[in-house]
This record gives sequence, structure tokens and C-alpha cells, in this order.
Amino acid sequence: MTQQFEQVGQAFVQHYYTVFDQDRRQLHPLYQGDSMLTFEGQPFLGTEKIVEKLVNLSFQKIAHKVITCDCQPTAANGILVFVAGDLMVDDSPHPMKFSQVFNLKPLPTGSYYVYNDMFRLNLG
Amino acid sequence: MTQQFEQVGQAFVQHYYTVFDQDRRQLHPLYQGDSMLTFEGQPFLGTEKIVEKLVNLSFQKIAHKVITCDCQPTAANGILVFVAGDLMVDDSPHPMKFSQVFNLKPLPTGSYYVYNDMFRLNLG
Repeated sequence: MTQQFEQVGQAFVQHYYTVFDQDRRQLHPLYQGDSMLTFEGQPFLGTEKIVEKLVNLSFQKIAHKVITCDCQPTAANGILVFVAGDLMVDDSPHPMKFSQVFNLKPLPTGSYYVYNDMFRLNLG
Repeated sequence: MTQQFEQVGQAFVQHYYTVFDQDRRQLHPLYQGDSMLTFEGQPFLGTEKIVEKLVNLSFQKIAHKVITCDCQPTAANGILVFVAGDLMVDDSPHPMKFSQVFNLKPLPTGSYYVYNDMFRLNLG
């Protein structure tokens, strides 16, 4: 039986990567002013700095393929999501492995935003 | 500058893997009754079930080598820790790659326990 936090976490991640792969400038609404991103060890705080970082990544085309997506409920009705997957970058035929952690926080509207975000390529 | 949540997160992980690699039956104090583990997609709730799972993993010798350790503060004074590293299993000369997420929750004593724990081998 899939529990609600799993449905929400998986749907959120699906939506996040769809937006990211189509036009990552549109990720704004999925972050807030207190959102944190650690991208390959580099910290970014708040929607503007986070989206600026993501928009300025140096590829032209990107596709995220989710292979595993683990979800757990966490403090204050948050949902912790741990993704592992493949990244298809530009026209390279070789996917790169990545892992990413999202801690989703509920908004008064009933939807969620990314409070914590940590991204790593799995090199080696 | 290393911030406090980073020092705590990194020290916790160092301690956790030292205990794990020496005698994982001793991991009890690092979990509580509401702790959650998702191990390769399988969920476990509470100290007993979690430690039982870890103790029954089928290797004799294990060594965790942390390669990256990202930390962020999270809700309710928690600390989110995202580890990637190498696992040396028994006498295999080939390390396996793993990723693990810990959400640490403060205890009234001032120390922390593992509230959320998600583990994945990075295969392929």
C-alpha cells in the first residue's frame, strides 16, 4: 500500500524534474525565501540564488530519469524524499548517475515547497 | 567557515559509521522508538526493527568510507545529512558506492538521534 507521504513525495519529484527538464527558470514557485540548496557541496539560500544557480548550469539539454525514490514523513508535516537516477546531459549517450535529497515543507495552501535540497553526482 | 550544524552532522556520521563498522549491535542508542529506516526501499520503524535489520545484513566485515558529507539545518532544530561514500565489504577489493540520508533530531540531553534514515547502494 502506498502511503500518502509517498504519493505526495513521488508526485512532487515527478513535477520538479518535468519543470527542470523543460525550462528550469520556471522552478521559482517550488522554492521559498528560506529554501536551501547544497549543489555539489556549494550552499545557496533562497529562491533567487537557488534558481540562478540552476539556470546557469552549463548544459543546454537535460533529462532526469528517476530510478529509485524513497519517501519518509518528517518533522512538522514535512516529507523527506531521496532520489537516485540517471541524468542525460545534452547529446551524450552516457547517462551520469545522480542522487538528490528533498525535504518538502507544507504551505498553508496545502501544497509543498522545497525547504532542503542537496544534489550530488555519483562519480567514480 | 564550518557552521555548527555541519560540525555536529559530520561528527555524528563519523561516530555512527565507527560504531557500525566495529559492532553494529551497539547502534541502539543512536535510534529511538519513532526512528524510521528505509533500506534499499524496505521500511523499518523503531530502534528494535532497525537494529535487527542492520545486524542481520549478511556480511562479516564492513568499512564505511565517507567521501562527501553535506549538511543543512532543518525543521525543529534537526540536521539533515547526506553522505556518499565507499563500502568495503568482507574481503572484496572492490568498494561498493553508497548514499545515505540521515535526519538528526535533538534530544533533551543535547545530543541527537537518527529520526530519518534512508540507505541505497549506487548500482550500475
